[in-house]
Amino acid sequence: DSQLTLLAGPCAIESYDTCAQVAEKLKEITNRLHINYVFKSSFDKANRSSSESNRGSGLEAGLTILEKIKKDFDLPIVTDVHESYQCEPVSQVADVLQIPAFLSRQTDLLLAAAKTGKVVNIKKGQFMAPEDIKSATEKISPITSKILVTERGTTFGYHRLVVDMTGLITMREAGFPVIFDATHAVQIPSAYGGHSGGLRDYVFPLMRAALSVGVDGIFAEVHPNPPKAISDADNQLYLSKIEAILETANQIFQENLASKEARAADGLL
Amino acid sequence: DSQLTLLAGPCAIESYDTCAQVAEKLKEITNRLHINYVFKSSFDKANRSSSESNRGSGLEAGLTILEKIKKDFDLPIVTDVHESYQCEPVSQVADVLQIPAFLSRQTDLLLAAAKTGKVVNIKKGQFMAPEDIKSATEKISPITSKILVTERGTTFGYHRLVVDMTGLITMREAGFPVIFDATHAVQIPSAYGGHSGGLRDYVFPLMRAALSVGVDGIFAEVHPNPPKAISDADNQLYLSKIEAILETANQIFQENLASKEARAADGLL
Amino acid sequence: DSQLTLLAGPCAIESYDTCAQVAEKLKEITNRLHINYVFKSSFDKANRSSSESNRGSGLEAGLTILEKIKKDFDLPIVTDVHESYQCEPVSQVADVLQIPAFLSRQTDLLLAAAKTGKVVNIKKGQFMAPEDIKSATEKISPITSKILVTERGTTFGYHRLVVDMTGLITMREAGFPVIFDATHAVQIPSAYGGHSGGLRDYVFPLMRAALSVGVDGIFAEVHPNPPKAISDADNQLYLSKIEAILETANQIFQENLASKEARAADGLL
Amino acid sequence: DSQLTLLAGPCAIESYDTCAQVAEKLKEITNRLHINYVFKSSFDKANRSSSESNRGSGLEAGLTILEKIKKDFDLPIVTDVHESYQCEPVSQVADVLQIPAFLSRQTDLLLAAAKTGKVVNIKKGQFMAPEDIKSATEKISPITSKILVTERGTTFGYHRLVVDMTGLITMREAGFPVIFDATHAVQIPSAYGGHSGGLRDYVFPLMRAALSVGVDGIFAEVHPNPPKAISDADNQLYLSKIEAILETANQIFQENLASKEARAADGLL
Repeated sequence: DSQLTLLAGPCAIESYDTCAQVAEKLKEITNRLHINYVFKSSFDKANRSSSESNRGSGLEAGLTILEKIKKDFDLPIVTDVHESYQCEPVSQVADVLQIPAFLSRQTDLLLAAAKTGKVVNIKKGQFMAPEDIKSATEKISPITSKILVTERGTTFGYHRLVVDMTGLITMREAGFPVIFDATHAVQIPSAYGGHSGGLRDYVFPLMRAALSVGVDGIFAEVHPNPPKAISDADNQLYLSKIEAILETANQIFQENLASKEARAADGLL
Repeated sequence: DSQLTLLAGPCAIESYDTCAQVAEKLKEITNRLHINYVFKSSFDKANRSSSESNRGSGLEAGLTILEKIKKDFDLPIVTDVHESYQCEPVSQVADVLQIPAFLSRQTDLLLAAAKTGKVVNIKKGQFMAPEDIKSATEKISPITSKILVTERGTTFGYHRLVVDMTGLITMREAGFPVIFDATHAVQIPSAYGGHSGGLRDYVFPLMRAALSVGVDGIFAEVHPNPPKAISDADNQLYLSKIEAILETANQIFQENLASKEARAADGLL
Repeated sequence: DSQLTLLAGPCAIESYDTCAQVAEKLKEITNRLHINYVFKSSFDKANRSSSESNRGSGLEAGLTILEKIKKDFDLPIVTDVHESYQCEPVSQVADVLQIPAFLSRQTDLLLAAAKTGKVVNIKKGQFMAPEDIKSATEKISPITSKILVTERGTTFGYHRLVVDMTGLITMREAGFPVIFDATHAVQIPSAYGGHSGGLRDYVFPLMRAALSVGVDGIFAEVHPNPPKAISDADNQLYLSKIEAILETANQIFQENLASKEARAADGLL
Repeated sequence: DSQLTLLAGPCAIESYDTCAQVAEKLKEITNRLHINYVFKSSFDKANRSSSESNRGSGLEAGLTILEKIKKDFDLPIVTDVHESYQCEPVSQVADVLQIPAFLSRQTDLLLAAAKTGKVVNIKKGQFMAPEDIKSATEKISPITSKILVTERGTTFGYHRLVVDMTGLITMREAGFPVIFDATHAVQIPSAYGGHSGGLRDYVFPLMRAALSVGVDGIFAEVHPNPPKAISDADNQLYLSKIEAILETANQIFQENLASKEARAADGLL
C-alpha cells in the first residue's frame, strides 16, 4: 500500500484520560501525514515477569474505555488477546486482535481470533525463525485473509533481544503485511529480575532501519509520561517527541516506496 | 530427595494401548530401580508448528484414557494444560499439571493450575534466562508449595536449542526441585518448516550431563515406535532401549547424591 | 564527515585485470556521486574454513598488484594483515591496514599496524559485544588517532551471523568512524562444511538499514562475476549492479545526515 | 584411552615459584590417581581485552621457566602460540602447542605448529559450530596425526558463553581426542569492560557434565591464589581444592569408560 500504517498507543489501558490524550495527538499527526492509524492499548498485561506487576484494567473495564476511544476519536482499535474465550467479546470493540509473541504458536487462540472476522496481527515469537511465521499464518489463512505479521525481536543470549533485519524480508514471503514493533524490540527481558527494562534510545534508529529495509507498518508504544507508565516504562516513546519521529519515519517509508520500483527493475531487493 | 523422579510416557495420547504398553514397562523398570515414576502424556499438542499436524485425542477422550492408566497401573499422572479453563477438569485426573514452556509467563494459567492444589510443573520458556524461573514460581508460591521447574533448552540462533548446564544450578535457587527434559532439549524447532525435528542420539548424553550436574528428576518422552509417533518422532526414546538408559541414569543420580555431601564439605558445588 | 566512505573491491586479489575492472568502474561511479572511495582486495585469505580453499595471490605478488592499482587509478588502498611482520611491508603500499574480525583482540597485530602510521580499520570480532570495540581501539589510540571500526555481524547460533543495528550506535561511542561491512554480514559460516555460504540478496537491505541508523562508511566486496570468484562467491555484489546500489546508499546517507541535526535538536538519536 | 588426560596449571607464567607450586601438587595428585598430566601455562596473554592488562612473562623468559618446570618435575608442557614465528622456538620446550580459540582458523599458524612435530591442541573458536572443528584438523592432518581438539564454549548473546554438551560428541567425529576446557568455558567476556569475569562455581559442575557425556581430557587453570592471579582471576580453580575435584572427575571418567561398552552394545551413544 502507499500509506504507512501505525499501531500505537499506551502499553496498558491505565485510564480513559491517558488513552484519550495519546489518541487525540496521534490522530492529529497521522491525519496531517496521511498515515493509517490504529489505536493500541492492552486491557491485560497477561504475561508480566512477576505477579507484583500491575496487570492493567482487566477485560471488561478495558473494553469500555477502548470503545469510548473508538467512538470519541473515530479510530480503529488493536488490542491483545490471551485466551480463546476473550476473542469474541474483544471483537465487539477491536478491529484488530493481536496475538502476543509468546502465544504465536497457540492454535486455539489463533483460530478463535480468526473466526471473529476481525484482522489478526500475529507477533512472531522470540523463539521463532522468520520463516516460521508462515506456519502460524497458514493455521488461519483458510479462515481469514485479514492477517498482519509483526517482528518484535528474537532471543539473543540471556536478557537480550536482537532484531535481524533480514527477517523482515523473509517474513514478507508469508504473503501478508509486515509490521515492525519498534518499542518491544528494545526490551531487556527481566532486566531487573521482577520486571523488564528497555533501551528507549534505540527505538527510533531501529524504526528507521526497518523502514529502509521495507515494512508496511510500525508498532510503537507511546505514553504522555513513560517513566510513570505501569508497564514498559523504559521503552515507551514520549508523546511529546512522537511528531518528529513520525515525520522522519513517514519520509523514509515514502522514499523506500519510491525506490522499490527502481530496485525491482534492477533485480535488487 | 534420595530417589530419582521420572516423568515419562508417549508425547501424545495416541490410544489406550500405546499408553498402557509404555506405562506397564516403565512401572516395572522403575519399581526395580526405586525410581519415583509419574506417567506423562498430552491430550492436546496445542502449539504444533502447523495446523496440518495431528493434535491428539482432545481433552475429554484424553482424560478418560489417562484416568484408566492411572487406575490400571496405579500411577500418578502428569499432563499439559494450555488455557485456564482446562486446569479444573484436568486436576480431576492428573497429579501434576504441566505448564508448557511457551506459556510459562501466562499468569492466569499459572494461577489456575496452582489453585487446583495439584503439583505444578513449570517448564522454563525457551526465551527465559535460568534466573527468570524464579519470577514464575513466585507468581504461585503464595498459593502452593507443590512446584517443580523444568529445563528444556534455550533458543540458540534459528532452529536450534542449547542446554546451558549451569542454568540447572541457577534454577535450583528458586527453591524447588529441578527436572531436566531430555527429549525436548534436542528438538530442532520447525526443522522441516511445517514440523520440528530432533536429535535423538543426544538425549542420553544430555541426560547423563544433567544428572552429573545435579537434578532431581528427568522428563523423557518414550514411545514403542517413535518413527510412527504422531508427534516428536525424531526425539522420543525407544521403549525397547529405556531400561539401559534408566539404569545408567539412576546410577549417576545416586553417585552424584553420594558425592554431594563431600563436595559441600569441600566448599564445592 | 559530509561524504560517504566506501571500502570496496574483489574479496581476493585474483589478478590485476579483475582488480582493474572493479577499480575503474567504482572510481567512475564514486567520483560522480562524491563518495570517498578506497580500493579493497586481500592478498591472503588467511583464515579460510578449509585448506582446500584458494588463499589468493600471496603477500609479494598481491602487493605488486595493489601498488599498480593504486598508481594506475590514483586510489587509496585497504588490505588485511594477519601477522605482525606483515604490517611494515603492507604499509609500503596500503593506506589502510585492516585487522580481520577473528584477530581483533591480537594486541601485537594491532600495535604493529598502528606503528606504521597508516589508518587502522579494526573489524569487530563475531564474538564481541559492540561496547567491546572500545577495548580494541584503546590498545592503539595512544599511538594513532587514525582508526576506523567496522561491524560485520555477530555469532548467532551455529552457521549464522546477525547484525544488531543498535550496535552501530554503541560502536560510535568509541570515538571513531563506523563502517558497516555489508557483504560479510550475510556470510553463512561453514555453510557447506569446507567453505562458507552467503545470502547476497540481503546485502543491499542491510546496507540501507545501517545507513538509516547512521554509519560513516560502507564496506562491500564487489566482483565482475561473483559465482566465479575464488572466495565469498555467494555474497560478493555484482559489479554490474553496484551503481544503482551506491546511488540509493548515498541518498540515504545524505538524507540521514540532513535529518541528524533536526534529530539532535529534538533530543532524538 | 583408559587414562584421563589433564592439561592444567596457572593461566599465565607469573613466576617460577607459582608454576612450581602448582606443578608439584598436581604431579603428586595425578600420579596417585593415574591421570595423564601435562603442565600448562602461557608466556603471553596475547589477546587480552585491554592493553592495560598484564600480558605475562614474554616468550623468552616464559620458555626458560617452562623448561625448568619440565626438568624439575619431569612433566610434559603445553603452552599457547599466537603467531607462526613462535612455533619453532616454543617447540624446543613444549610437548603440546596450543592454538588459541580466536586463532583456530589461522591456516599459517596451524601449519607452523603442525610442522614442529609436536602435538597440536586446537581450541574450537567461540564462533564455530562443533562440526567446523573438522575443517581445522583437516588443515594439518596431512602433516601430523598428533592432534587434540578442545571445547571452551560458544558465543551466546553478548558477554556470555554457553557450552553445548552435544558438541563434544560432534567434535569427536573429527577423529581426535576431545578435551574440555572447564575454566575458560565459564568466562564472561569483557564483563568489566576492560577485562573478563568468570563464574568459578560453575567450573566443576560443567567438568562433571562433560565427563559424563564423554571426553578424553580436561583443561583447567589452577592457581595457588586465584584472586591475585594476573589473569582469569574469576575463573581459575584454587589449588587447595583441586584434589577433591580431580578425584570426582577421574571417578566419572572411569565409570563412563566402563559403561561405554554396555552403551555401545545397546546401540546408545
